[in-house]
Amino acid sequence: VHESDLASEAIELGPYAHFMQKEIFEQPGAVANTLEMIFNIHSISPELFGSEAENIFRDTNSILILACGTSYHAGLVARYWLETVAGLPCNVEIASEYRYRNPIADPATLVVGISQSGETADTLASLNYAKSLGHRHSLAICNVAESALIRQADLRFLTRAGPEIGVASTKAFTTQLASLLLLTMTLAKMRHKLSNEYEGKMIAALRHLPAALQLALQVEPQVKAWAERFAQKRHALFLGRGVHYPIAMEGALKLKEISYIHAEAYAAGELKHGPLALVDNEMPIVAIAPNDVLLGKLKSNLQEVQARGGELYVFADADSQIQESEHVHVIRLAEHAGLLSPILHTIPLQLLAYHVALQKGTDVDKPRNLAKAVTVE
Amino acid sequence: VHESDLASEAIELGPYAHFMQKEIFEQPGAVANTLEMIFNIHSISPELFGSEAENIFRDTNSILILACGTSYHAGLVARYWLETVAGLPCNVEIASEYRYRNPIADPATLVVGISQSGETADTLASLNYAKSLGHRHSLAICNVAESALIRQADLRFLTRAGPEIGVASTKAFTTQLASLLLLTMTLAKMRHKLSNEYEGKMIAALRHLPAALQLALQVEPQVKAWAERFAQKRHALFLGRGVHYPIAMEGALKLKEISYIHAEAYAAGELKHGPLALVDNEMPIVAIAPNDVLLGKLKSNLQEVQARGGELYVFADADSQIQESEHVHVIRLAEHAGLLSPILHTIPLQLLAYHVALQKGTDVDKPRNLAKAVTVE
Repeated sequence: VHESDLASEAIELGPYAHFMQKEIFEQPGAVANTLEMIFNIHSISPELFGSEAENIFRDTNSILILACGTSYHAGLVARYWLETVAGLPCNVEIASEYRYRNPIADPATLVVGISQSGETADTLASLNYAKSLGHRHSLAICNVAESALIRQADLRFLTRAGPEIGVASTKAFTTQLASLLLLTMTLAKMRHKLSNEYEGKMIAALRHLPAALQLALQVEPQVKAWAERFAQKRHALFLGRGVHYPIAMEGALKLKEISYIHAEAYAAGELKHGPLALVDNEMPIVAIAPNDVLLGKLKSNLQEVQARGGELYVFADADSQIQESEHVHVIRLAEHAGLLSPILHTIPLQLLAYHVALQKGTDVDKPRNLAKAVTVE
Repeated sequence: VHESDLASEAIELGPYAHFMQKEIFEQPGAVANTLEMIFNIHSISPELFGSEAENIFRDTNSILILACGTSYHAGLVARYWLETVAGLPCNVEIASEYRYRNPIADPATLVVGISQSGETADTLASLNYAKSLGHRHSLAICNVAESALIRQADLRFLTRAGPEIGVASTKAFTTQLASLLLLTMTLAKMRHKLSNEYEGKMIAALRHLPAALQLALQVEPQVKAWAERFAQKRHALFLGRGVHYPIAMEGALKLKEISYIHAEAYAAGELKHGPLALVDNEMPIVAIAPNDVLLGKLKSNLQEVQARGGELYVFADADSQIQESEHVHVIRLAEHAGLLSPILHTIPLQLLAYHVALQKGTDVDKPRNLAKAVTVE
C-alpha cells in the first residue's frame, strides 16, 4: 500500500471537533475541486476520463459497477442516472459477491471500479476477475492518485476530495457521485442522448452544486435537534424510492457505523412485504422525500407507517407538500434539485449520523471494529 | 381478485398450533407435488412450462426476474443457478422499483414474474411495464392457477404448494425455488450446458429433495432451544455468501415478520464496510455456513464477529468443520446438498422465526400490520 503525501494543513482539525464534521463541511470545496475542469468549459468531453476514453466509450454498450460499502451506494445512484440520461443498461455489484459468482461477461461492457482508497481488496480482486472473464475495458473512480485501482484500470477519474480521515466516508461519497454524473453526461453526449441545451443546463447545475451543498449544510441546527431524540433509539428504518433509495441506504449505513444504532434501509415499496411488522412507536422512520415523480407513492407508504404509530422524520424539498404534525417531523432543503437531488439529500443524513454519535459519545472518527480502508478480504 | 376454491381439509390445522407450523411441515409434500411431473421421467423438457416454451426458450439470451418480498429472495437464488448452470445472464429486480425506473429492454430477455398469490400489484404492474418497454416474452411462477399473473404471462409454472394461510410465506418459497431450479435445468439443457450424466444426477437429486426436506425438519428441537435465547433479543444480523446470501435475507425477513425482532441480512463480505460496528454481545449473528466453496471466506468473516464479542448461531453442513464453543452454537444439516443447499437451509430459518414468535407470543399467522397478498401499491 502506497501512502499519499498529505499536506499538513489538510490533516489539521481547525475549528472542528472531529474529522468527520470537518469533512462533511468540506464537501462544497471537495466537489468544486473534483469538478474544477468543467468550470471553464461550455461542453464536456471524454478526455476528462483519460486519453483513450473516447475510443473506449464509443465501444461501450453497458456498464458494470463494482464496489463495496459507501462506494457501492454511489454506484447504485449512478445506475439510475446512466439508464435515464444515457440510455445505458447498468448493473451494480457488491465486489465481494461478484468475485465469487459465475457472471457472464460482455466485452462491450465497461467495468467501473469505485473506491475511496483505491486499495479495497475485494474491489481490486473483482475488477481483475471481470477482466479475466473477458471484459475488455475498465475505469477507476478513486480518491488516491497513486493507488492500485488507478494503476489497474484503463481509464481513471480522480475525485479530488482531499484526504479523508474519518472512517465513515462523507466527502469521498459526494465527490464520487459528482464524478459519476459527469460520466453519465459524457456517455449520454457520445450516444447523442444529450441535447446542447440540456448539456448547458447540466453544466450550469454542476457549477452551482458547491453553492447548493453549502445551502444544504445550513440545516445542521434542525438536524441537531432531531439527533437528541434519535440518540435514545436502538433502531431506525430509512425509506426511499428510485434514485433516493441508495441515499436511504447510505444514511442508514452512516448511522450504523458511528452511532451503533441498528438502522436499515428499505425501498419503500417493499415495506408491506414484511418490514412494516417492525413498525411501532419505538421505531423512528426516516424518509427521503424530495418532490420527484415518486413522491406520491412514497407519501402513501408513509401514511401506512403513520397509521401503525411510527414516528416519521422526513427530509423533503421546499415543494414536497408534506405537513408537519405531532408525529411527522420535516426538514426541508431548497427547491427540488433534479438529477442532483441525491447528492444534496446526502448532507442532512451525514449530519444526522454525526450528531447522534456526538449525543451517544462514540468515537466518531474511529468507530469500533472498523478500519478506514478494507485492504484485506 | 379471483379467490381459489380451497378444499376444506387443506385449511384445517390438524395437529398443528398454527398454519405457519403446518405449512413448514408440509414442505416435503408441497415440493413433491410441485415436482410431480419429473418423478416418472428420465429427462426434462421445456413443455413443463407451457406449449410455447420450447420456441420462447430457444430465443432467450438472458433472464429478468421481477418480484417482491420473499418471492424476490427466490429470484436472487435463481440468479446464481441460472448463471452457473445455464450460463445465462440474469437480473433480479424489486418490482416496485423496476416499474418506476427507466430500464433498457432487450426483446431476447425472458421476463419472469414470481408471486405466491399471483395478485401482487407491483409484480403485475412491473410485468406489464416490462412488456411495454419491448420485452417480448414472460413466464409466471405462481401458486394460484386462476390468478392475474398466470393470465398475463405467455408461459407458466404452477407451484403446487396448496393454499398458504400463514402471512409469512414458507412452502410457497421452497416450491418457488424448486420450480426455478427446474427452469434452470431446462434452459441449461436447451443451451447444451447440461450433460446427460449431470441431468440424470440432478433429476435424482430433485426426486430426493422431499426426503431431504423431511430430514432437515428434524432439527426442530435444536432450533427451539436457540429460540428461547433469541426471544430476549431486539436485533440480529444474518450473514451468508453467494447463493446463501438470499437465504440469509429470507431468514431475516421471517424473523422480522412474525417475531418483530429487527433482523437484517448482509453479504458477509460487506461486514467490514460498516455493519461490524453494530456487533457486540447484545447482537446475535446467524450465519448460513454450508460446506461450499465460500465456507473458508465466511469463516474468516465469522472470526471477526467473534473477536468483537458477537454470539454466533451457525447453520452448517455435516462437513462444515465449524467447532462449537462458548459463543459459537452450531446446528448441522446432513451432508452438503450442492445446488439444493439453499432450499434445505431455508427450513431451520423458518423454524427459528416460528419458535421465536411462539416464545414472544405474537400472532404468528397474522402478524401485525401485514396482509397475505399485497394487492395494492
